[in-house]
Amino acid sequence: MDLPPLVDHHCHGVLRYEPAPGTFAAYLTESDRPPAAGTTFFDTQTGFAVRRWCPPLLDLPAHCPPGDYLDRRRALGPDETRRRLLGATGIGAYLLDTGLPGDLTGPAETARAAGGTGYEVVRLEALAERTAIGARDAEEFTDALGTAIEDAARTAVAFKSVAAYRHGLALDPLPPPPHEVHRAVRDWMAAGLPRLADPVLLRHLVWQAVATGRPLQLHTGFGDPDLRLDHADPALLTDLVKATADTGTDLVLLHCYPYHRQAAYLASVFPHVYADVGLALTHTGPRATAVLAEFLELAPFAKLLFSTDAYGLPELYLVGSVLFRTALAAVLGDWTATGAWSAADARRVGAMIAADNARRVYGLDAATAAP
Amino acid sequence: MDLPPLVDHHCHGVLRYEPAPGTFAAYLTESDRPPAAGTTFFDTQTGFAVRRWCPPLLDLPAHCPPGDYLDRRRALGPDETRRRLLGATGIGAYLLDTGLPGDLTGPAETARAAGGTGYEVVRLEALAERTAIGARDAEEFTDALGTAIEDAARTAVAFKSVAAYRHGLALDPLPPPPHEVHRAVRDWMAAGLPRLADPVLLRHLVWQAVATGRPLQLHTGFGDPDLRLDHADPALLTDLVKATADTGTDLVLLHCYPYHRQAAYLASVFPHVYADVGLALTHTGPRATAVLAEFLELAPFAKLLFSTDAYGLPELYLVGSVLFRTALAAVLGDWTATGAWSAADARRVGAMIAADNARRVYGLDAATAAP
Amino acid sequence: MDLPPLVDHHCHGVLRYEPAPGTFAAYLTESDRPPAAGTTFFDTQTGFAVRRWCPPLLDLPAHCPPGDYLDRRRALGPDETRRRLLGATGIGAYLLDTGLPGDLTGPAETARAAGGTGYEVVRLEALAERTAIGARDAEEFTDALGTAIEDAARTAVAFKSVAAYRHGLALDPLPPPPHEVHRAVRDWMAAGLPRLADPVLLRHLVWQAVATGRPLQLHTGFGDPDLRLDHADPALLTDLVKATADTGTDLVLLHCYPYHRQAAYLASVFPHVYADVGLALTHTGPRATAVLAEFLELAPFAKLLFSTDAYGLPELYLVGSVLFRTALAAVLGDWTATGAWSAADARRVGAMIAADNARRVYGLDAATAAP
Repeated sequence: MDLPPLVDHHCHGVLRYEPAPGTFAAYLTESDRPPAAGTTFFDTQTGFAVRRWCPPLLDLPAHCPPGDYLDRRRALGPDETRRRLLGATGIGAYLLDTGLPGDLTGPAETARAAGGTGYEVVRLEALAERTAIGARDAEEFTDALGTAIEDAARTAVAFKSVAAYRHGLALDPLPPPPHEVHRAVRDWMAAGLPRLADPVLLRHLVWQAVATGRPLQLHTGFGDPDLRLDHADPALLTDLVKATADTGTDLVLLHCYPYHRQAAYLASVFPHVYADVGLALTHTGPRATAVLAEFLELAPFAKLLFSTDAYGLPELYLVGSVLFRTALAAVLGDWTATGAWSAADARRVGAMIAADNARRVYGLDAATAAP
Repeated sequence: MDLPPLVDHHCHGVLRYEPAPGTFAAYLTESDRPPAAGTTFFDTQTGFAVRRWCPPLLDLPAHCPPGDYLDRRRALGPDETRRRLLGATGIGAYLLDTGLPGDLTGPAETARAAGGTGYEVVRLEALAERTAIGARDAEEFTDALGTAIEDAARTAVAFKSVAAYRHGLALDPLPPPPHEVHRAVRDWMAAGLPRLADPVLLRHLVWQAVATGRPLQLHTGFGDPDLRLDHADPALLTDLVKATADTGTDLVLLHCYPYHRQAAYLASVFPHVYADVGLALTHTGPRATAVLAEFLELAPFAKLLFSTDAYGLPELYLVGSVLFRTALAAVLGDWTATGAWSAADARRVGAMIAADNARRVYGLDAATAAP
Repeated sequence: MDLPPLVDHHCHGVLRYEPAPGTFAAYLTESDRPPAAGTTFFDTQTGFAVRRWCPPLLDLPAHCPPGDYLDRRRALGPDETRRRLLGATGIGAYLLDTGLPGDLTGPAETARAAGGTGYEVVRLEALAERTAIGARDAEEFTDALGTAIEDAARTAVAFKSVAAYRHGLALDPLPPPPHEVHRAVRDWMAAGLPRLADPVLLRHLVWQAVATGRPLQLHTGFGDPDLRLDHADPALLTDLVKATADTGTDLVLLHCYPYHRQAAYLASVFPHVYADVGLALTHTGPRATAVLAEFLELAPFAKLLFSTDAYGLPELYLVGSVLFRTALAAVLGDWTATGAWSAADARRVGAMIAADNARRVYGLDAATAAP
């Protein structure tokens, strides 16, 4: 299917160094634990998809054993591996969440491997945790946070909330009043600034970000076991969605699986809500076609965005983009073949999901590329 | 697939007048808000399905631009448009919910366009709201309501509850005692009769309807954003389903999407529970096949009913019926082709879902046609 | 598809006698009530699958009328029917839950019909109810229960909890302290030992079983209407899953439908969690392919187990195993045909799900066959 350069509207940096085999395998799964005895993370759809699509780009046959692949990868080195894999993704713009730890490539550095453009997405909780380190009291923190968010809004193209991981999505929908925020900050500081998980602070971050007018990405659906899956159902955001309906700020629901039909519903009835196929395609291999088709039941075609959610491994960029292209071609091709859709509409909708919707939502034509 | 005249067991009137383009588009979605900037409600599965199936009936090519279609529609006028579109649906019986506002065709008027028969479904909340206008106190209201429901039961073929919209489906399952009902009515009257949303009154309506023995249709699953999707999961009705199991009254779960597997489960274990494909097919275009197939995993074949849930536009009748026929033929045809089902069984089940189940559940052969 | 002898890791005995037609039909459904007037349990995917696959093994044409099939079955008698049907399943090992009432075949007796091996799975609630009958007080009961569970762990290959039926899966995740257990036992005894449904006792059973190190099977998802479907979502087990993560004991989520994607997620992020296709395939007929494919989106291939959950009728063993083989061949065959998977990987994964995973999890090569 003929598509414009993809806009990967939610992704992460990749490792600058060559990972050990166990580290490589750990990036194939959302688990944060070792594999069960007698099993390997390569025996998953993600592992099989990596073995299907990546070895040929490293001069090996598809489906070669993991050991052969890792040997060859090591021989090429991380830079050449990244260059080859990212160069084959067809991604032209990377909206990169810079809030994850590790020795990872930044937005421009990631994009450079294939001549694309990098933009920054600022993760709210990480920004707040960094800001808190220097603050002497709650007032100073909230002031500094306000400034930090305003500053970020000048160059970043979006914010991101991981409230799903820290508390779950059943948040009180309204902005917390200042005295509640201050009390929560004092408690957080008194506790020695553990990972930010107080629902009052999470809501404060969401509303501060919404106030900037930049689109707000919200993690929903599956992820690592830090979250409880049933607490990450995007339908739980309904009251927050209603409360933000008149702010002029767009909300983008990330991943959503296995609640992607719920996310598509929200995108269908609320003008400012968008949804994302992200992780849901990368981790489901040949089932990406079926999952994308489920998204496209209720999601208006102007409301669905492409992302890889790649993290750590350039392989995940390659797999995420190939599975997306393959799934999109299969789904729209099938609907065109039966006459349900016209070929012209299929081409138009393909371009919308691949790039046009994201360019419009994030204002990419006027946005600041990240350094 | 050769089917008897369809029984559309849950639908609404269509506009008697020619809608403006924006009004027309608004009927293609469950949203009650304007489309997001830069988007149109035509870029949805419903919009594409209308453009696929309706233009040829108005002498235009399939997939013609929306503007061309609306021009042609205006030239033909609402009566001729309705005649052509409804005439192509193959629907023989319309069970029409008369509780929606607007200048809409009534049951007989709708059915007449294609020589069918119209029946009335009475929406409980609307009936209660009408009844309350003249009542002087709670006792007078509950007496008048009881009479109104009994009267309706004489001619209407079913009742319908939209408790999902007004409160959500997690209702206390038991009938509220009279003093609670009276207190709730007094509060409602004191508040100036706002939209009826008190859970005590919603339950009272449900149980009054159940007492008549007429089937009770319950909205479940997606709809306009008045409802919270996760509060409309039909599984939340389980305790009410158990409480009504020995009343002799059937419950029909409408739409159900994306919780249609949950609805099918309820229909499979409770003799008095039925489920409906309704809105779930109309709004999913070429995915109607997949959605119907999911219904048919657990739903006993004698427990699934056809409806379009069409509202406002005759296009939605046409699309709802065509998608149903197409999906049914595809699903049953596939199962017959692989030998999983016999051709005779497929024909029999097709007729059951299309018409026979509804004729039996609503007693249509003995029912009063609506004027 | 070439598979090793299947390991049916969760099943039940079959009737030793010839059931009356109504009894036979009642085993085709999870409903515990009569069919709705004018309907039959044969008009379900399970009924159609029985009529598709079983008649040829009894010398009748596929899809013959139910009456013909039941006549022929009666003529052959229960032993010959069982021999023919079980002999065609390809099941080599039966892990049989012995906690259901009725004149049912035991593990060895069931397995013998086709030369397989039977193993016992002990149902915790049934064990507790049996143990309570003789106990004079709470202390004596808990001591006797502890001994009974330890004894069972010596010969049984697994335990099973039906907490989903008795209370729902939203259990407090931690082991209840002894004084709470004793109080709950005293209350239960004082009430005359009704069906065990106290959440404290259900948790006590779970933790006692976990302490033995034997895998613990947990019913999740649909079943008879004793349970509330939404209270059986395996995601509700997340906190218990986390609490048991370091015990060294494996948890196996049974059936899971329609929450099988949630179960697959849990299996993908927690090393000690496994999932089971069970009932979800037996009851969905030609849709077993789609349901299995949904499982295989997130479930690591070493974490999915085969079962029939057959109960009462040897037909359910036949249908469960044929639908599994057919679905597996269709899904993996499709993925191999498109090049997404290699043929060698497909064969390997097929054997894992069919038998190897269960042999490893239950330690079958060293396990004690049941008498």
